[in-house]
Amino acid sequence: MGTKGKVIKCKAAIAWEANKPLNIEEVEVAPPKAHEVRIQIIATALCHTDAHIIHPQYEGAFFPVILGHEAAGIVESVGPGVTNIKPGDKVIPLYLPQCGKCKFCLSPRTNFCGKLKNFRNPIDDQKLMEDETSRFTCKGKPIYHFMGTSTFSQYTVVSDVNLVKIDDDANLERVCLLGCAFSTGYGAVVNTAKVTPGSTCAIFGLGGIGLSAVIGCKAAGASRIIVIDIKNEKFTKAKALGATDCLNPRELDKPIQEVIIEMTNGGVDFAFECVGGADIMRAALDSVTAGWGLCTIIGVNVGDSGLRVSSVELIMGRTLNGTSFGGWKGTDSVPKLAADYKNKKFNLDALVSHTLPFDKINEAFDLMYQGKR
Amino acid sequence: MGTKGKVIKCKAAIAWEANKPLNIEEVEVAPPKAHEVRIQIIATALCHTDAHIIHPQYEGAFFPVILGHEAAGIVESVGPGVTNIKPGDKVIPLYLPQCGKCKFCLSPRTNFCGKLKNFRNPIDDQKLMEDETSRFTCKGKPIYHFMGTSTFSQYTVVSDVNLVKIDDDANLERVCLLGCAFSTGYGAVVNTAKVTPGSTCAIFGLGGIGLSAVIGCKAAGASRIIVIDIKNEKFTKAKALGATDCLNPRELDKPIQEVIIEMTNGGVDFAFECVGGADIMRAALDSVTAGWGLCTIIGVNVGDSGLRVSSVELIMGRTLNGTSFGGWKGTDSVPKLAADYKNKKFNLDALVSHTLPFDKINEAFDLMYQGKR
Repeated sequence: MGTKGKVIKCKAAIAWEANKPLNIEEVEVAPPKAHEVRIQIIATALCHTDAHIIHPQYEGAFFPVILGHEAAGIVESVGPGVTNIKPGDKVIPLYLPQCGKCKFCLSPRTNFCGKLKNFRNPIDDQKLMEDETSRFTCKGKPIYHFMGTSTFSQYTVVSDVNLVKIDDDANLERVCLLGCAFSTGYGAVVNTAKVTPGSTCAIFGLGGIGLSAVIGCKAAGASRIIVIDIKNEKFTKAKALGATDCLNPRELDKPIQEVIIEMTNGGVDFAFECVGGADIMRAALDSVTAGWGLCTIIGVNVGDSGLRVSSVELIMGRTLNGTSFGGWKGTDSVPKLAADYKNKKFNLDALVSHTLPFDKINEAFDLMYQGKR
Repeated sequence: MGTKGKVIKCKAAIAWEANKPLNIEEVEVAPPKAHEVRIQIIATALCHTDAHIIHPQYEGAFFPVILGHEAAGIVESVGPGVTNIKPGDKVIPLYLPQCGKCKFCLSPRTNFCGKLKNFRNPIDDQKLMEDETSRFTCKGKPIYHFMGTSTFSQYTVVSDVNLVKIDDDANLERVCLLGCAFSTGYGAVVNTAKVTPGSTCAIFGLGGIGLSAVIGCKAAGASRIIVIDIKNEKFTKAKALGATDCLNPRELDKPIQEVIIEMTNGGVDFAFECVGGADIMRAALDSVTAGWGLCTIIGVNVGDSGLRVSSVELIMGRTLNGTSFGGWKGTDSVPKLAADYKNKKFNLDALVSHTLPFDKINEAFDLMYQGKR
């Protein structure tokens, strides 16, 4: 390629401060150091987690930063000691590393990795490379990484435990969704909640994660898949994927949880919160049945202090859990998910609402925000 | 017996209003109607759940009421249609009924029963018999039942699905503890949390439930059993039952959860909240490891609005659940637990702190309150 070992100048979208559009800037991307990999990003998706950092009420934001964590690309070069990847490989960056050696990686119970430092706030983690420096500079200033991936750049540098090789014939504009949305929503259902055949499910929010949860519930054999969104136009896709009942809370004359409890004679077996926010967490928890109801939290709440839970709600047999990246160990699982996609076990097309060139990334954010409101 | 079909006059402890001692009064106990059983209570224990109703901040209290739900007795007479029990049988009243026919009873996932009407507030449930009347009167007034059991009376009436027969040679002064404390704490560990061999556990509170949880953790093969209480004198019993580390939060110079996280290199696998209260729920949830930590809530919070949970805590792999009666289906399981006790699989002596005559019940409440403070 001629760029190995050299600084690459390219375009990246930089968040300089909160509550402002990103700026497309020329950045310098340093060569990968030991156990690092430099990737040309071919396709990146947007996620509300990217938007959290620039949310005016987000505490602990750090600037300037290159956001983005759901992408696919091609390896440009590798640093010393990298053995799992070579230039030209198609890869998906992984915001959850998998070192394969720590107590988390060695446990089948989790997809976390001891390379993470902050188990209280994963968004604040991996904002520098392992040597505590950045590979990005712009106008002479170092720029923070984001979740170890920073995919809103034509080139990025990640640790060799933060990416996974996929097949050479993979469609990068689709499998980029395996980097977060699909894996998270689908995995929440099949790994974290372990939805059982014949069960009733409620899915709050029909963004990429919610639609992927619908795919998961359908695959798991749920008998009833109730989807909830405030935009009726999202119901068409959801129905095509397997949703059986579509509810718009703004068109109901009573709280959504009361409607769901009535529809299901006491509440669903499984609820999935795919939006983020205390009110929706509340509705999701209220919607699950006493006895064995499981409410799985996927969305991140920002700007509120979370869900207030009384002990009696739990004592009456309700369980609250959560999922990050759908419980998948990335290196082990993403290639299998990519193969399943290739073998048409599921379709990712429904998750793609718009495709835009990189320099229209602020328009993409606007479209995402509109989807929420 | 000569009393069958007649009103029995006996002594009962009546709560006439909140925040006052109970009054020992003469009450009339009506004969059992269809599918009801009248029991002579031989031994009853106290539980903080009895105290909740008379707590000045408890919302939804009902008076006058005969409290008590953890007891053992002998059947005096049975109403029409009762086939599972006969006069003279030794029995344990069950505050969780088991009708054997509803969707809950037919599911292996729960120990609830469709005979319960209020899955939001079990304490408020079963305050009258199924025909919406009471069997107790005092000074011409009907007196509420409590949790379908009302064991603070020399005689009580329960539904035939709210009791279970045990062996004729059972020691009622010990097996009464199978009616709540032991079953709840032990079952929370082995049924609800399913503690695994070699795991680390933290148990908050060393009342009857906490000590029973210690017995459960030891039986489950936990490698480390950390117990937390503000009364050092409780640690002797806990150690004898298997506790490995005893912590008094009042003697520590940092929050209890920080100490536990440091001791365990990131948090325990399982935490059990056996007290009740938002602060202790918070400490218990904080004490479990990211990745797979499970926090099981057993205590009931009164006078605060519960635990505030952020989505990220859950997304990082922590689970919150709760247990009522330790997940045991009463009719199926209590006789087995009684047999296990007789076969010395576990010892209930440690759970008995004091034994008092019935008319000293207010002293017993005072002793329970002192244990908490």
